[in-house]
Amino acid sequence: MNSVSSDSIVDNILQVFKNILGEPPIGLHEPTFEGNEWKYLKECLDSTFVSSVGKYVDLFEAQLAEFTGAKHAVAVVNGTAALHIALKLSGVSPGSEVLLPAFTFVATANAVTYCQAKPHFIDIEEKTLGICPASVYEYLKSISEMRGGKCFNRQTGCEITAMIAMHSFGHPVDIEGILKVSRDFNIPVVEDAAEALGSYSHGEHVGHSGLIGALSFNGNKIITTGGGGAILTDNQDLAARAKHLTTTAKTAHPWEYRHDAIGFNYRLPNINAALGCAQLESLPQKLQNKRKLFNRYKNAFEKVSGIFIFEEPENCKSNYWLQAILLNEDDIVLRNEILDYSNKNGYCTRPAWELLSTLDPYINCQKMDLINSKSVQNRLINIPSSAHL
Amino acid sequence: MNSVSSDSIVDNILQVFKNILGEPPIGLHEPTFEGNEWKYLKECLDSTFVSSVGKYVDLFEAQLAEFTGAKHAVAVVNGTAALHIALKLSGVSPGSEVLLPAFTFVATANAVTYCQAKPHFIDIEEKTLGICPASVYEYLKSISEMRGGKCFNRQTGCEITAMIAMHSFGHPVDIEGILKVSRDFNIPVVEDAAEALGSYSHGEHVGHSGLIGALSFNGNKIITTGGGGAILTDNQDLAARAKHLTTTAKTAHPWEYRHDAIGFNYRLPNINAALGCAQLESLPQKLQNKRKLFNRYKNAFEKVSGIFIFEEPENCKSNYWLQAILLNEDDIVLRNEILDYSNKNGYCTRPAWELLSTLDPYINCQKMDLINSKSVQNRLINIPSSAHL
Repeated sequence: MNSVSSDSIVDNILQVFKNILGEPPIGLHEPTFEGNEWKYLKECLDSTFVSSVGKYVDLFEAQLAEFTGAKHAVAVVNGTAALHIALKLSGVSPGSEVLLPAFTFVATANAVTYCQAKPHFIDIEEKTLGICPASVYEYLKSISEMRGGKCFNRQTGCEITAMIAMHSFGHPVDIEGILKVSRDFNIPVVEDAAEALGSYSHGEHVGHSGLIGALSFNGNKIITTGGGGAILTDNQDLAARAKHLTTTAKTAHPWEYRHDAIGFNYRLPNINAALGCAQLESLPQKLQNKRKLFNRYKNAFEKVSGIFIFEEPENCKSNYWLQAILLNEDDIVLRNEILDYSNKNGYCTRPAWELLSTLDPYINCQKMDLINSKSVQNRLINIPSSAHL
Repeated sequence: MNSVSSDSIVDNILQVFKNILGEPPIGLHEPTFEGNEWKYLKECLDSTFVSSVGKYVDLFEAQLAEFTGAKHAVAVVNGTAALHIALKLSGVSPGSEVLLPAFTFVATANAVTYCQAKPHFIDIEEKTLGICPASVYEYLKSISEMRGGKCFNRQTGCEITAMIAMHSFGHPVDIEGILKVSRDFNIPVVEDAAEALGSYSHGEHVGHSGLIGALSFNGNKIITTGGGGAILTDNQDLAARAKHLTTTAKTAHPWEYRHDAIGFNYRLPNINAALGCAQLESLPQKLQNKRKLFNRYKNAFEKVSGIFIFEEPENCKSNYWLQAILLNEDDIVLRNEILDYSNKNGYCTRPAWELLSTLDPYINCQKMDLINSKSVQNRLINIPSSAHL
């Protein structure tokens, strides 16, 4: 520790953890299975339908659509697969560019690459932790031109075929602002709502305000299917094509094995969907618990100078999937001290992702000035967030 | 029915089904869960480790390696993912060509396409239902040339970067013959052993005689994890790279999210691996049952003229995953009559796959004369094969 002041911040944070979370070890995010999980899994085994056929996939899709208000949900093997297909269906073509925040999990950029398109990194705003409509608007005005109703990067000559709005840690991005930019430049919006099941913007569940969106049910998410994801859309044709492409593009026939496109083996197994159905039942309770935990953290961290806890954006309701504190000042040394000290003391904390624009596979990609992304990346720490805490 | 003779074949087949399988409905292939499946799944739930962390993934990988004799097994989300990564690691590069049988499931060609390479279809031989080393050797002699130790298609100018040996319905291909062709033209062999867990060629379990191979544990396979697959290899470096690429290529660090390559979210969830561990325990029994079923079919079909049951190739031990009968003569009308009549009477039968070279997405791919593939495709019918029959 290099100063009294940083010592005191680090100690104060640890004291908050002790008061609120109790004795260590405390994980960052752990799932709970306290409902019908075992019952539904057992039904799966007893029916022998554990795989690509079975009632739980249909049921899970119907329940996801109902919960999110999306007209259609297509269950898939994980959030990355969901985003990959969402991008394909939104018209992302080989050689084109896709705008996405540099501040996101690597899968967001990987999904772009699977479409043989190129990530093009844009900045976030601190108030949502998601892409900033105003600065993206100015940036696009400066680097792009419209030709035949399509948006092209003037520097590279490549068409910009999509913009990914990512809801970081479950906090809704300014989707209305982003949709306005989307209309101005005719760039479809794909929502990466991997972390945002149970989050709302202006009363609408996130993930289907743009053309199409993706959810994730990985083990660290607010609900889990072991591994799983879903595509959300209000467009019936896109939903049908999503189902077709994620199930090897097989054409309907009583026995013929005929496929009319290059499809994917992305269908969620029935056994994982069964887990999802049980987990969805407990989602309202989990959302309540997470909000309560946020409020306890908020009260406690208000008394710690030098940091604050991230709060849901205006007019939004966050699922508070991963709670985050931010340092007031950009101080990576202090950030690392907090990470080091809390983890050594048994309270699992994590930094945000390294900016994707700094990773070897993406270091040569196009990018705008990422000033806010860098600042947030140096200042943000995710803290224990399990719904049972 | 268009003749007395075909009437009689169709009726005789149905009579065999009735005698051997009992009253309909009888499915084509159904899994059974009669061992520790419940116990291990419950352990997963109770431990809360259902996803990407947990002991069953490591255990399943160790048990797969032990069972197959491969030095390394890397569990992944399905067989298609396993094949995709196996091809990548064998050196398949964008724009290159990959030799594969036209007679296989569409995922074999899709995995090639995911590598941005081009499928190039080769013929099978009837005695193995897999690619024919002799005709592929002659074909390569006629269309390829060696440059700098690499094999190029003279017509397209593209490098041929791999050859996929697929073990159809679990019957081992002539891997020794294929490896000889592989050495002659310096083309790595990737084994598509999706259907062949429990199959042996000259005493060696299939899937790791070439550079690398893929298994599948989809719901219709001899054992199932709901959805799942594995990469097999004897090469430690390839195994390490397979694990790295299938787990988002994250570099080791206590907390940093840094990724050094474009990776994939292909890891098998712990809950699916738990199912796999239980299923592996029952594999020897399943193999015995399937061999017994084959022998009962063989005895019965010997008395039906015009057809025969496919028997494991010489020096091979097949898992008899999907039993198959073949018509003596190429007669697609009769084949369809048998399919129609058996399915209408509640005994599920299926034709082989449409040749991939005839599917819309692959119709313009390079191909050799597919005379045996066409003949087998018109004559083969898969019949009920569940291990509990």
